[in-house]
Amino acid sequence: MIKTNIEQLRKLFIMPDSPDKFIEFGHELLKLIHHFFQDKGGIHSEISLPELSKIFSNIDIPKKPQLLKDTLREVKDKIIDHSVKVGNPYYIGHMTSAIPYFMILLEMIIAALNQNQVKIETAKASSFVERELISWIHRLIFNRSPQFYKKHIQNHRVALGNVTIDGTISNLTALLVARNRAFPPHGRFPGIRKAGIAEAFRYYKCKKALIITSARGHYSIDKIARIIGIGEQNIIKAPVDSMNRISIPALRQIHTQIQEENKKGDGTISVIALIGIAGTTETGNIDNLAELRSIADDFNTFFHVDAAWGGSLLLVDQYRYLFRGIESADSVTFDAHKLLYSPLSMGMILFRDEKSLNHLKHTSNYVIRPDSVDQGRFTIEGSRPFACLKPWTTLKILGTDGFKLLFENAFDLTASLRGLIERHCNFEALNQPELFIFNYRFVPKKIQERLNHLMIEREDDPSNEVTKKLLHKINTTLNKLNIELHRAIRQEDNSFISRTMLESTRYAPQRIVVLRAITVNPLTTPDILKEIIDEHDRLGTKIFKNEFKGKLEKI
Amino acid sequence: MIKTNIEQLRKLFIMPDSPDKFIEFGHELLKLIHHFFQDKGGIHSEISLPELSKIFSNIDIPKKPQLLKDTLREVKDKIIDHSVKVGNPYYIGHMTSAIPYFMILLEMIIAALNQNQVKIETAKASSFVERELISWIHRLIFNRSPQFYKKHIQNHRVALGNVTIDGTISNLTALLVARNRAFPPHGRFPGIRKAGIAEAFRYYKCKKALIITSARGHYSIDKIARIIGIGEQNIIKAPVDSMNRISIPALRQIHTQIQEENKKGDGTISVIALIGIAGTTETGNIDNLAELRSIADDFNTFFHVDAAWGGSLLLVDQYRYLFRGIESADSVTFDAHKLLYSPLSMGMILFRDEKSLNHLKHTSNYVIRPDSVDQGRFTIEGSRPFACLKPWTTLKILGTDGFKLLFENAFDLTASLRGLIERHCNFEALNQPELFIFNYRFVPKKIQERLNHLMIEREDDPSNEVTKKLLHKINTTLNKLNIELHRAIRQEDNSFISRTMLESTRYAPQRIVVLRAITVNPLTTPDILKEIIDEHDRLGTKIFKNEFKGKLEKI
Repeated sequence: MIKTNIEQLRKLFIMPDSPDKFIEFGHELLKLIHHFFQDKGGIHSEISLPELSKIFSNIDIPKKPQLLKDTLREVKDKIIDHSVKVGNPYYIGHMTSAIPYFMILLEMIIAALNQNQVKIETAKASSFVERELISWIHRLIFNRSPQFYKKHIQNHRVALGNVTIDGTISNLTALLVARNRAFPPHGRFPGIRKAGIAEAFRYYKCKKALIITSARGHYSIDKIARIIGIGEQNIIKAPVDSMNRISIPALRQIHTQIQEENKKGDGTISVIALIGIAGTTETGNIDNLAELRSIADDFNTFFHVDAAWGGSLLLVDQYRYLFRGIESADSVTFDAHKLLYSPLSMGMILFRDEKSLNHLKHTSNYVIRPDSVDQGRFTIEGSRPFACLKPWTTLKILGTDGFKLLFENAFDLTASLRGLIERHCNFEALNQPELFIFNYRFVPKKIQERLNHLMIEREDDPSNEVTKKLLHKINTTLNKLNIELHRAIRQEDNSFISRTMLESTRYAPQRIVVLRAITVNPLTTPDILKEIIDEHDRLGTKIFKNEFKGKLEKI
Repeated sequence: MIKTNIEQLRKLFIMPDSPDKFIEFGHELLKLIHHFFQDKGGIHSEISLPELSKIFSNIDIPKKPQLLKDTLREVKDKIIDHSVKVGNPYYIGHMTSAIPYFMILLEMIIAALNQNQVKIETAKASSFVERELISWIHRLIFNRSPQFYKKHIQNHRVALGNVTIDGTISNLTALLVARNRAFPPHGRFPGIRKAGIAEAFRYYKCKKALIITSARGHYSIDKIARIIGIGEQNIIKAPVDSMNRISIPALRQIHTQIQEENKKGDGTISVIALIGIAGTTETGNIDNLAELRSIADDFNTFFHVDAAWGGSLLLVDQYRYLFRGIESADSVTFDAHKLLYSPLSMGMILFRDEKSLNHLKHTSNYVIRPDSVDQGRFTIEGSRPFACLKPWTTLKILGTDGFKLLFENAFDLTASLRGLIERHCNFEALNQPELFIFNYRFVPKKIQERLNHLMIEREDDPSNEVTKKLLHKINTTLNKLNIELHRAIRQEDNSFISRTMLESTRYAPQRIVVLRAITVNPLTTPDILKEIIDEHDRLGTKIFKNEFKGKLEKI
């Protein structure tokens, strides 16, 4: 048992006079971490979730102190060994990728400094770093004049944007600005922030407030509509085209409908924001942002772009054309823990107009006084870590030249994978990737031929109910097959891919289960992708033969 | 210039086969960090904010890659050297304190694993760690039966609480649950989450929704009322007593008023939540939580407790009495980066009823499917880091026994400081600290005598306008003096203290500028506090003589 007194404890709080002990533990940890990455034992550990449950089911808070080295051992055995190897080159299922190893060094600095970004009294240089980074990303997106940035890069009177914890809070920030801007103070009405939504609706004779995005909109938009009191049923999810982009004709139709509705005179429908997506989470596609700007103007509404995933591509000039129109958005969400390769988690929200964030500005007595220079005046969060050091440093170490190489490599990987799938007789490609997300499913050759045949029949005679039913039945069975396949891949644990459900494929409106690959890890190679697909084929074929062959051939 | 190709870049993404380089940089960093802490050069660097502005005013994103070692040098010169030494024992101004050095090691692990807590596919063991920690803190607060915890500690069907980014998001989570619970689905009404607030008000014939807290409520409550669409003017900030606790008689009066108002029949006023505070941010006091529970029942409302600051004291049995009634709250906010001594930032929100968080539950196709075990089903944030490793490990290494020592020491420090101030003829104590926050101001002996004299006169004849005016005038001047003093302390930079404005002192309703000390750093000692107060006295006396003596003696 360990004897403790306050003197002993104090030693834990101080950087030891001789840093030997710290370094000793540091060495051990490096070995641990190194071992974790070297370990060839699969993406996940073999332990089952019920077994893991048992390990972490101690209902008593520890009473007696435990030695640091014993605790680190416990962390290794119980946690590190059973963590998901998200940086493994065979892990191509989620947006979490390998990160540069210097991130680990930067986290040391961030923890040691322990600055709280809410306030200049707890974050001196780090407040300025944050503003410089925000200005860089702002320029990347909105490309306003050099004079604009020279004036505002360190202008504490305005905020060009916020650093946030993640894309959800970034989207929340944007939609709050949009909502508040739609119901401003006017006459005897003190504004929606003071009076609340119900009062705002009464004053402005508004019967409904809408948010418009596409069916590919991130699920955070639903969350946010609930949080800010608009209500989930007041999100209009416009259909998408075959490229998973919001349908412009559908938007125009919605506009006409709302105009008609507003002529009735029983209260107006207010569109508080139109949201474009620059990198859909499921398919990696980009809406036609320039068109959306013009439609937002027709709606007389706020135009937000969710570029949490895709935004980083703007670092490379040759990909800018993909985002044409983004510079005209009112706000843009941009994540650092996605394609800026930072560890979890840091988002940003940028506003074209340097005064937009005044719609959220707040103050208090003991921090963020009205005359202050505190970053906390404009944020939803209160206390925030000095997370911006990570992307700020990464941009210096890699430079835009480095990002160009990373993204070229990611494009090559996606093309490789697409090639593998399209040339393979047992797979069907189900999206046209613009960025690095590719969807496909396992469909044995024979069944694919049958499907193609039925599709031609459907084209010839769209009203033929028999064809439709057959297609539906086959796809329903293939959905089950691909869920089984996904499970088998997880079981095998040599690689990792995610799965989702799409309604924007050639089989629309039927929803299709697909495997979803995200190929952004610089350690992944075309050979690795080949290995992965070979395994999918092997497992898929086995499952097909064992469980689905009879069923599918009978249809 | 550095030549880069994708092979070079890949090396940054891999833990080097021989970890020498990583360790080499690690060593250098340790030296840097060590130097930062050893440096006796004051709390802040001498650089002015305009000078710092200049350093961070490069409007161009770096194009060419830069060597890691050069970048780390830049981080040292520009950032580390100009960061605030929040862990310095002379820094007693904010809730940010020294942290145990093993936190730096834990951050290395967190970054290396890079788990995303939103989903089991990106966070295996770490999801279980999170639930175990949440269960510990839940038990600490609500102390339900051991059977309850055995059943739910790893029960993925429910959530006893969430890990959040900070106290603001924790409070937001609680108030969203409260709001949604107040306007549930009913008959043809699909609930406030689907329909939005305006529709909810119409269906439930509600004319106003209120949140009640005290005048000491954290400024995040204002933010949240704006965010969730209730409106800032619908927060009732009940007055506090001389101990900065919410006034129970005032609450009863509010209850009666609302009942009267509701009898009118022109729509009801709905109280969606009553918020108690367990550790006011400015004064460290704790509301009478047991009374608040009973009043919440009278209001038939949700009872939330903001224990972001004070909650950790529950780790030590002897302090539980301070929080009597907290176990009956519906939800409690609890921060790890405050008195669990974690680095920035991590909060928690705990709900007594394991089903409360169903009011926020959401799903999506590609992550957090309805049948999933994902932690992201219940959170406001999407992507989240494995931050819970820090408090989980700290509780093991320190144990509740270790926290007992830390808090006893903090109580001793607060008592020392209070003693120093109360015995000192040039200072006036302005709150009775229950936890570790103490407010005082500089009032030269002579002026203090004058004030005391006037206060007696006011007591004798409360209607005497001349006395009142004199008191007001003296306090206004003392406010200015203490703002000057605070500025001088900042200038001197040997120590750091914050300042705020209180309206709950003996001079109420006049608002008084106070210095605010938070004495939680285990490296601070009574001798250090004496040094700090001696300096305050020296600076205050100088300012008084130079600028305020004439003015004050004339009054």
